[in-house]
Amino acid sequence: MEKFKQELLDIYYFSSAIGILHWDQEVNMPVKGSEIRSKIIGNLAGELHDKFTSPKFERLLRQLKQKWAAGKLNDEDSCIVREIWREFSREKKLPLSFVKELAETTARAQTIWGEARKKNDFKIFLPELKKIVELKRKEAQLVGYKKSPYDALLDTYEPYLNTEDIEMIFSELKGFLVPFLAKIKKSKVRIKENILKGDFPIEKQIRFNRSMMEKLGFDFAAGRLDESTHPFTIFINPVDVRMTTRYKKDNIFYSINSTIHETGHSLYEQGLPLERFGTPLGESISLGIHESQSRMWENVMGRGENFWKYFYPKMQKEFPQPFGKIKFSDFYKTINSVKPSFIRTEADEVTYNLHIILRFEIEKDLIEGVIAVEDLPRIWNDKFKEYFGLKVPSDALGVLQDVHWSGGMIGYFPTYTLGNLYASQFYATAEKEIINLEKEIKKGHFEHLLNWLRKNIHIHGKMFSAEKLVEKVTGEKLSSQYFIDYLRNKYSKIYEL
Amino acid sequence: MEKFKQELLDIYYFSSAIGILHWDQEVNMPVKGSEIRSKIIGNLAGELHDKFTSPKFERLLRQLKQKWAAGKLNDEDSCIVREIWREFSREKKLPLSFVKELAETTARAQTIWGEARKKNDFKIFLPELKKIVELKRKEAQLVGYKKSPYDALLDTYEPYLNTEDIEMIFSELKGFLVPFLAKIKKSKVRIKENILKGDFPIEKQIRFNRSMMEKLGFDFAAGRLDESTHPFTIFINPVDVRMTTRYKKDNIFYSINSTIHETGHSLYEQGLPLERFGTPLGESISLGIHESQSRMWENVMGRGENFWKYFYPKMQKEFPQPFGKIKFSDFYKTINSVKPSFIRTEADEVTYNLHIILRFEIEKDLIEGVIAVEDLPRIWNDKFKEYFGLKVPSDALGVLQDVHWSGGMIGYFPTYTLGNLYASQFYATAEKEIINLEKEIKKGHFEHLLNWLRKNIHIHGKMFSAEKLVEKVTGEKLSSQYFIDYLRNKYSKIYEL
Repeated sequence: MEKFKQELLDIYYFSSAIGILHWDQEVNMPVKGSEIRSKIIGNLAGELHDKFTSPKFERLLRQLKQKWAAGKLNDEDSCIVREIWREFSREKKLPLSFVKELAETTARAQTIWGEARKKNDFKIFLPELKKIVELKRKEAQLVGYKKSPYDALLDTYEPYLNTEDIEMIFSELKGFLVPFLAKIKKSKVRIKENILKGDFPIEKQIRFNRSMMEKLGFDFAAGRLDESTHPFTIFINPVDVRMTTRYKKDNIFYSINSTIHETGHSLYEQGLPLERFGTPLGESISLGIHESQSRMWENVMGRGENFWKYFYPKMQKEFPQPFGKIKFSDFYKTINSVKPSFIRTEADEVTYNLHIILRFEIEKDLIEGVIAVEDLPRIWNDKFKEYFGLKVPSDALGVLQDVHWSGGMIGYFPTYTLGNLYASQFYATAEKEIINLEKEIKKGHFEHLLNWLRKNIHIHGKMFSAEKLVEKVTGEKLSSQYFIDYLRNKYSKIYEL
Repeated sequence: MEKFKQELLDIYYFSSAIGILHWDQEVNMPVKGSEIRSKIIGNLAGELHDKFTSPKFERLLRQLKQKWAAGKLNDEDSCIVREIWREFSREKKLPLSFVKELAETTARAQTIWGEARKKNDFKIFLPELKKIVELKRKEAQLVGYKKSPYDALLDTYEPYLNTEDIEMIFSELKGFLVPFLAKIKKSKVRIKENILKGDFPIEKQIRFNRSMMEKLGFDFAAGRLDESTHPFTIFINPVDVRMTTRYKKDNIFYSINSTIHETGHSLYEQGLPLERFGTPLGESISLGIHESQSRMWENVMGRGENFWKYFYPKMQKEFPQPFGKIKFSDFYKTINSVKPSFIRTEADEVTYNLHIILRFEIEKDLIEGVIAVEDLPRIWNDKFKEYFGLKVPSDALGVLQDVHWSGGMIGYFPTYTLGNLYASQFYATAEKEIINLEKEIKKGHFEHLLNWLRKNIHIHGKMFSAEKLVEKVTGEKLSSQYFIDYLRNKYSKIYEL
C-alpha cells in the first residue's frame, strides 16, 4: 500500500503540474504561445496516461484490489483502492484508438458547432453530433452498464448515481416547476429590471469582489483570483486554489455572481485535507457535490435576504451610484427576478432547472436510441414550449446554445441541477444544526456555515459517494423536496403567491 | 536522427513545463503553496533526468555520436549531437550521490549565508563555503579538464571558453580600469546625484515601462511583463517569453534599468528560431552571449545619449515632476555617474567590471587551491582597496554580499563581464554595418539594431560557440579593446578627462 501511495503521489504531482499549465493557458499565456502550449500539455498528459496504465502500476493495483475484495484493507485504504480501480478499469476498457477518435471528433466538432451557432443552422452541426452520439453510445457499450447506457456516461461526472434515480427526482421537480412558473408569470408583482446598471470602475469591482471572497472565507494565502472570459476554478492542491471571474463596466453583478459561485467551488477545494493530497481522500467527490457548494454560496447565500442585509450597505457605500437610491426591498427583488428566457446560463433560480431537465431528457433519449439526432430541433422546441410557455425563435437560442455536446460531454448537464438539490438538502440540515444560522449570516458571520461544510463535507474527500454522503449528512436519501420547499417559500414571498 | 529529435522534443516540452512552473512560483503562487510546489517541480525534474539518461536515449545518442565523429552528419545535426552529447556526458560523469550531496549542501548553505550576511559574520558561513569549494573541486575532477580545474566549472556557464583566455582578457581590462577610475575620481566634474527622485505612481510606471519595451521590439503577443522581487527572464519557448521587473514609487530608474536589461534578454529569446524549438539550434548560446544582449540594451543603448534623446522628452511629458526642470545634459550625466561603491549590483558601468574581476580572481584561486577559504575576507578587502581605493567596512558589504557561492555557482561571475565585452565588440560591428545607426536610434528606430542582432546572433541558436560566433560576426577574436574604447570615449567626455 505504501508503495502504491508513492506511485499515486507521483501521478497527482503530474496532474497538479498540468493543472497549473491549463490555468496559465487561460489566464496568462501570450496568444502566440497557444499551439506549442497544447503540445506541452499533450506531452505531459500522455506521460500521465502512461504512468497510470503502466504494467508496474497495474500489478500493484490488482494486488491491492484483491486485498480490498478480501476485506483486508482499512476504510481509508479501501476508498483509495476503490476509487483508483474505478478510474483505472474505465480507462482500461476504452481502447486507445477509440479515445483518439473521440478526441479528434470532439475537437473538430467544437469548431463546427461554433460555426453552426453563429450561422444559426443546426444542419451544419448535425453530422458531427450524429458521430458524437454514435461514439458515446459505443463508449457506453465498452464501459458497460446495468440498465441504461446513459448510466455509463453519467458515471464519469456523478459516480455511482443511476439514470433511473435521476429520472424520478427530476420528474418530481418538473411536476412542481412547470405550474409554479406559470403561477409566477401570472403574479401581479412587477419587478424593476434595469435598476442595477451603473458605472463601476473595474479596479473598484476587483477590490469589492476580493473583499467579499475574504469575508466568505477564501484564503488568499492559499489561492488567487484572476480574470478570464469564462470564469472557472482550477484545483492544483488545497493550498493553491485558483479561481477566475469576469468584469463588465456597467454591471457589477456580472462579476459578483460569478465570483460568489467560484468562491463556493474554491472553498470546497481549500477545505480538502492537505495531508491526504495525492489520494482520492484528498479529492472532491463529484461534479454534483462540487456544484452543491458553488450554488449554495451563489444562490442560497448570494441571492438570499440575510446575505445582502449584511453586504448591501457596504455596496451602497462603495457604489452610491446607483445603489444609494435603491431600496433594499427593490434590490432584493431585482436580483431574484424570475423570467423565462432562452439561454440557460442567463436563467434565474426557478427556470434554470427546467433548462437542465429538458437537456437531460433529450440526451438520455439520444443515448438510449429512443430519438434521432435529426429530430433534435423539433423536440427541443416542443419541450421548451411545454415547460416555459415560449416559442424558441432560432436554433442559436435553442438546441445550439451549449458547448457540452460538441465536446462529447453527455451526462454532464444533470450535475447542475443535482448541485441545487444537494445544496438545499444540505442547507436544510445546516439550519437545524447551526444555532441562529440565518441571524449569523445577517451579521456577516459566514464562518459557521463554512465550518459546518468543512466538517461535514470537505474534510472527507472521496471517502463517501455523493449518495452516501447525503444520507450521512442529512439522514435521508437525496430528494427534490428540499429544493422545492426552498423555491416555494422564497418565491411565493417575492411574487406574493 | 528523426527518432532522436522526437525524443529530444519530448525533453524540451518537459523543460518548458518546468519553466512555466518556476515562473508561476515566482510571480503567482500563493504563499502556502510553496512546499508542495517544490515537490511538483522536483518530481518533474526527476522525470526529466530519467528521460535524459535513459538507456534508450543513450543508445540513440551514442549511435549518432559515432556518425557525427565519422563526419556523416550535416552541420545542423552535428550541432545538435555535439551539444546534447556535451550536456549528456557531463551529467553522466556526475554520480547521483554527488549531485544529491551538492544540492543538499547548497540548499542549506543558502539559508546559512543569508543568516551570516544579516549578522555580518563570515565565520557563520565559513564551514558551508568550505564544503562547497571542496565539492566544486571534486566536480571539476569528475568532469575533467585540460589545464585549470576552473575550466570544468566555467564550462557549465560559458561552454568552450577557458580560464587562461579569460585571465588574459580580464587582466588587460583591469589594467585599463584601475587607473581610469582613479582619473575619474580626480575629475573636477561634479554630477548631481539625487535629482531623479520623485513621486511615480506604479500604474504609470508600468505603462511607461511597457511602452519602452514595445518600442524596443518586445512582442507582447509572444511574451509578458510581470513583477517580482528579483527581476528575471524565463525562457519557455520563443512565443512565450516572460520577464519581470520591480518598482519603487520614488525612483523610476529602479524599474527602467531592470526592464531594459530584461528586455535585452527577452529580445534574444523571442528571436530564437521557433521552427528549431526542441533542439539546441533553438536555444541561446551561453550566459555570456545572453548577457551581451541584456547589457547592450541596458547600457550601450539604455545609458546612451541618443537613446535618451528619443525617450527623455516622452519621460518629461509623462513625469513633468521632476523631469520637467531637469536639463537633458544633467539627466544624461546623472544616469552615468561613476562612483566606487561596495555593492556589485548597484555599480555603474565602469566600476561594475572591477567587482567581477575581483570575484573571478578569488574563485579561480579557490578552485585551483591557491588560497584558503578562511582567508577570503582579508583577500577580498585587500583587493578591494587596490582596485577601488576603498576600505571595506564589513563582510556584509564585502565578501558576503552575493548569493552565488552559497548556491554553488562558481564560474558564473565572469559571464557578466564577458557580456559587456561581447556587447561592445558586437556593437562596434553593428555601427559599421548599419548606416547611421546612432542617428536612427535618436529617431527611435531601434528595429535596425534588433534586426541586425536577429540576423547575426539570435537566429543561429547554438550553431556556433560563443567564441566562434564572435569571430564570425566581428571578424576578430574576443578582445577587451572594444569595451575599453567604449568606456574611454564615453566617460572621458562626461568627466572631461
